[in-house]
Amino acid sequence: MSAAKLQAAVIGATGYAGFELAKLLLRHPQMATPLFLAREQTAAHPLEDFYPELAGDTSYPLEPFSWELAKSRGVDVLFLATPHELSRELVPEALARGLRIVDLSGAWRLKEAANRAVYGFEDKDAVVAAKLDQSAVYGLPELHRNQIRDAALVANPGCYATSVIVPLAALVRSGLVDTTRGVICDCKSGVSGAGKKPTQKTHFVETADNFSAYSVFGHRHTGEILEQAGLHADELIFTPHLLPIPRGILSTIYLGLTRPVTPDEIEGVLREFYGDAYWVRIFKHGKLPQVQYSLRTNYCDVGFQLAPDGKRLVVVSCLDNLMKGAAGQALQNLNVMFGWSEREGF
Amino acid sequence: MSAAKLQAAVIGATGYAGFELAKLLLRHPQMATPLFLAREQTAAHPLEDFYPELAGDTSYPLEPFSWELAKSRGVDVLFLATPHELSRELVPEALARGLRIVDLSGAWRLKEAANRAVYGFEDKDAVVAAKLDQSAVYGLPELHRNQIRDAALVANPGCYATSVIVPLAALVRSGLVDTTRGVICDCKSGVSGAGKKPTQKTHFVETADNFSAYSVFGHRHTGEILEQAGLHADELIFTPHLLPIPRGILSTIYLGLTRPVTPDEIEGVLREFYGDAYWVRIFKHGKLPQVQYSLRTNYCDVGFQLAPDGKRLVVVSCLDNLMKGAAGQALQNLNVMFGWSEREGF
Amino acid sequence: MSAAKLQAAVIGATGYAGFELAKLLLRHPQMATPLFLAREQTAAHPLEDFYPELAGDTSYPLEPFSWELAKSRGVDVLFLATPHELSRELVPEALARGLRIVDLSGAWRLKEAANRAVYGFEDKDAVVAAKLDQSAVYGLPELHRNQIRDAALVANPGCYATSVIVPLAALVRSGLVDTTRGVICDCKSGVSGAGKKPTQKTHFVETADNFSAYSVFGHRHTGEILEQAGLHADELIFTPHLLPIPRGILSTIYLGLTRPVTPDEIEGVLREFYGDAYWVRIFKHGKLPQVQYSLRTNYCDVGFQLAPDGKRLVVVSCLDNLMKGAAGQALQNLNVMFGWSEREGF
Amino acid sequence: MSAAKLQAAVIGATGYAGFELAKLLLRHPQMATPLFLAREQTAAHPLEDFYPELAGDTSYPLEPFSWELAKSRGVDVLFLATPHELSRELVPEALARGLRIVDLSGAWRLKEAANRAVYGFEDKDAVVAAKLDQSAVYGLPELHRNQIRDAALVANPGCYATSVIVPLAALVRSGLVDTTRGVICDCKSGVSGAGKKPTQKTHFVETADNFSAYSVFGHRHTGEILEQAGLHADELIFTPHLLPIPRGILSTIYLGLTRPVTPDEIEGVLREFYGDAYWVRIFKHGKLPQVQYSLRTNYCDVGFQLAPDGKRLVVVSCLDNLMKGAAGQALQNLNVMFGWSEREGF
Repeated sequence: MSAAKLQAAVIGATGYAGFELAKLLLRHPQMATPLFLAREQTAAHPLEDFYPELAGDTSYPLEPFSWELAKSRGVDVLFLATPHELSRELVPEALARGLRIVDLSGAWRLKEAANRAVYGFEDKDAVVAAKLDQSAVYGLPELHRNQIRDAALVANPGCYATSVIVPLAALVRSGLVDTTRGVICDCKSGVSGAGKKPTQKTHFVETADNFSAYSVFGHRHTGEILEQAGLHADELIFTPHLLPIPRGILSTIYLGLTRPVTPDEIEGVLREFYGDAYWVRIFKHGKLPQVQYSLRTNYCDVGFQLAPDGKRLVVVSCLDNLMKGAAGQALQNLNVMFGWSEREGF
Repeated sequence: MSAAKLQAAVIGATGYAGFELAKLLLRHPQMATPLFLAREQTAAHPLEDFYPELAGDTSYPLEPFSWELAKSRGVDVLFLATPHELSRELVPEALARGLRIVDLSGAWRLKEAANRAVYGFEDKDAVVAAKLDQSAVYGLPELHRNQIRDAALVANPGCYATSVIVPLAALVRSGLVDTTRGVICDCKSGVSGAGKKPTQKTHFVETADNFSAYSVFGHRHTGEILEQAGLHADELIFTPHLLPIPRGILSTIYLGLTRPVTPDEIEGVLREFYGDAYWVRIFKHGKLPQVQYSLRTNYCDVGFQLAPDGKRLVVVSCLDNLMKGAAGQALQNLNVMFGWSEREGF
Repeated sequence: MSAAKLQAAVIGATGYAGFELAKLLLRHPQMATPLFLAREQTAAHPLEDFYPELAGDTSYPLEPFSWELAKSRGVDVLFLATPHELSRELVPEALARGLRIVDLSGAWRLKEAANRAVYGFEDKDAVVAAKLDQSAVYGLPELHRNQIRDAALVANPGCYATSVIVPLAALVRSGLVDTTRGVICDCKSGVSGAGKKPTQKTHFVETADNFSAYSVFGHRHTGEILEQAGLHADELIFTPHLLPIPRGILSTIYLGLTRPVTPDEIEGVLREFYGDAYWVRIFKHGKLPQVQYSLRTNYCDVGFQLAPDGKRLVVVSCLDNLMKGAAGQALQNLNVMFGWSEREGF
Repeated sequence: MSAAKLQAAVIGATGYAGFELAKLLLRHPQMATPLFLAREQTAAHPLEDFYPELAGDTSYPLEPFSWELAKSRGVDVLFLATPHELSRELVPEALARGLRIVDLSGAWRLKEAANRAVYGFEDKDAVVAAKLDQSAVYGLPELHRNQIRDAALVANPGCYATSVIVPLAALVRSGLVDTTRGVICDCKSGVSGAGKKPTQKTHFVETADNFSAYSVFGHRHTGEILEQAGLHADELIFTPHLLPIPRGILSTIYLGLTRPVTPDEIEGVLREFYGDAYWVRIFKHGKLPQVQYSLRTNYCDVGFQLAPDGKRLVVVSCLDNLMKGAAGQALQNLNVMFGWSEREGF
């Protein structure tokens, strides 16, 4: 733990994404031992109480959060794996104290008020919040690498949103997609996406041997997708489904094209857009990614199949919702923010 | 087993669909003890060799198939749970011998040569086969009840096809669907749909914790859907996916409408079309079926969610691929063919 | 629903066992439409609120419980699928009102005070309770058929307990088991055994891809096993484990024998003991039951493998924890209590 | 890849254990890029043909095996992830050529002819084979660290065997276990233990929602357990079961003690025996390991619960069958053989 190393703190390491991030930060060669902070101002207890597999491992002490503690430990960067309401509350103060922030919640991802409406934020200081809404950088490094480098506040993308935006950003910008014919995203996620808190929806007996759609025309990630892919609200249908697996997302995306194309043209568009991006893997035409391929990695995999008429495109993208869909992407953002290789620590 | 009961035989009771049918036929009050016939002309052996849970149960003797045996036992109706090539071969002879047939394979489902091409049938007598292609009745009772009643040859629908055709038949015929904007069917099936023969694809380690799309723009059920829903080939996209569950199908169907409608209008169209159909359940707007709801039943469940603009419709349909998607529908067809209640035997 | 039919009521039909029982009672030919009663004295609501697959099915109205309601509807038999504390409270009153009862909880299964201690019952009237403790009949029909026939209060056995007692009762009574060498029951159950209420333990992410032992030397079913199998406390080890499947139990039981025996001798002991018992299936030597074989049936399957030295015996028993382990056995008890075939209604 | 790095080759990298090892070797800092060799003398093809998640990754070329190729590449150490018959055939030649070997099969694990009988080896040169049987070192580093350091041939232990031997070696040697009362090992493994080749047993539909015992009194790992734990054949019962999970083993072990002990005494025995062993984790009394805790790690976790009478002990051990049960342990053996930290490369 040399003085030259960076000091991070994580608020909310007890949730699935926060804990995944805790494990990543502990192995990152540029980082000092990170601080794990409890949202509640209660007595300290180890993360072992939430993750019994840590039994006997003393690397995960959980301390009650306070700004004083953060200051005394010399925290440089703060990760928020907190509910979005809490992120809205903590971020202004953290910025005022000079911390750089990666927020894993949905609190700061949206530029347009119409899209933020679904969250119903109640900010103490609406003026400050409005300013931060605009200065926050959407933390998808493959799209916003340069702004992330200098950002004080990085809004880490949603898991579904990442799986959809990665292929759409490249294809929509190419001009080949006739968005007026509708962009349909049929997305399927493993159960860890629903969080660690037990509910009827996450009960094993109701989830195993089952499959279901939910939040049709009403999921919170819709706004991110619209903004980042550059679509109008009535051009997008986004349908989440719950898969009976612990983790992993597969999105099947249906696009009508502006003119008949060849598979090589599509592959070319994707490869050019993501040429220098290590964490996006483009598959050859007809080779489709599966959920297992990217599990426990930070990859977003993208494959496609073109209709025989060359005018309709089915894209399949996969990622691990706790990695590229949350903690892995947060680490990738950290790497960009501090000028390290995007592969550092993986 | 009174003389008045009907005598059925099943060829191919060792597969998942054939075995499910065997169990149903044994409990059907109008049926004599059915005959289970092995495709191979080898020595008799019990179904227990394939389904060890039958240990000690003598109700499932498996006898080598021959036309003589079928005749000597007075078989009235023949169920084929055989590969489609074998169904093409057996059916002409079976009809010539006066048997009525329910074929669970894809052999006789298609009216149009273009759609049959994917199967590559090689018929001994092409003239006879061509005639049967036209006289065979597509065995979806909710659509073709009257023809099934008198049919000699009923072509039991595919599992995916049933889940898609049930909602589409009603909605497309209503005139509310703008099919030129494309009909997208994102379908997900449990592993029993891939058959009992072990392959890499059905290996537990490669299927559990996984999810994948396959046969995009190339699945055999495409032709059935086109013919029965009344679509042109370039109007339909049908994408099958493999779910890590033993059985069950959920299809998410995306439709553009010809004009803005209300939820009540959609519900009305579905309810009117299926008013008298016991085995199709229409859900209220916003209540979507899940795979578990229809498991081990013969129901096809249909729900929907309308976009706020009233012009885009997401339909979700579910069924058990071995029941309404195969054996259950075969039994329902039997009931229609012999004038019994469609619920008989369930 | 002729007047001659029997009227049942179920308190607690919202839990997994209670709901399974509700479905069975609705199909039982000797039963009038059963009453489903809510423990809470709140407004009526349908079971559909707890089991959405019932959407649109009006057979499952859930009414707030009161003795007046039970009386006015002419209830003959009361099923309690309630927490054991509530069963202790309701049973004395129900008996006083002349109802016959099948209690699915652990409230009335134990004869010995030492075994009841683990439950820590606090009875309003300890004298009455003590009397009922002795008059209650342990509802394992294969062991206590005659007493169940005339019983006012039948204590339906625990799921683990049934899977262990069925083989042990026969083998221990044969005198072939050297119980002083220890009887080891390594038991594995699906997640529905943990109840419908969501907890961290039943969260999909913590249960799928996992397996664990729990309550070693401390599970409540221990007392039942001791009493019914006729063992001393220090002769039994019973270790429950949680399987990542929705339902089903497999128990592996290890026994030392008093002398070397042959497989035929063991099979003979089991077959003689269970000669007339339809719901117990004895497997041939070396053919072991699996969880799938008895799923969704009322069977308890028993197989075994004898060591080459003939002195050590491994017994494997399987059942569906919601059927022979709960609701199915309750229905079987009903059949015995009212003189019907034990297979009635299955 | 400096010249100072060690060159390894893996024969059989297409199986689950061999592929896991391939991934580990590629990340090991002391190793040159390893060679992956196909058993079959056919044309080269990439491992991507067997593991499509490698699509586009060129790190896994699969070359046809020949001794000449191994020599020309300067192979120092050879890993065999081959069927045991092939290991019996290859090892004598490999040793003659001066290679050091870690064999993951069961070919060289057994010292006693009676225990080898179950494999039925047919050796070309029985004299040489007999000599190697005695000189091979059983590759459980926690037991045989010193011999492994200098061994030419290391026989990597079986997965079940490791989970059982780790706790038994310490406890039996302590003299606290009354082995004459019988040592019962009730073991449960995920499906990858059954290999990558698809069979009826590994078919998703027959494995999911199921659980079963198999090979009772007949599993090949029995001999290893007897030899390494120091038990007589009639003292051990080892019962394997198949869990519906991809990977992981949990073994529940039942032991009678020679005198009443305290939990601290048991914990002390285990901690003393494994004091310096990083990859064995001893849990506090009553804290039992679960399969998830050690998944994708090289840990063998050991916990226990003592009966109230202090005379009967239930031990629970867990490991990942592809890591500490196969490839991870092979890497640990490599580390010991070449004098590196046992944690190197993990």
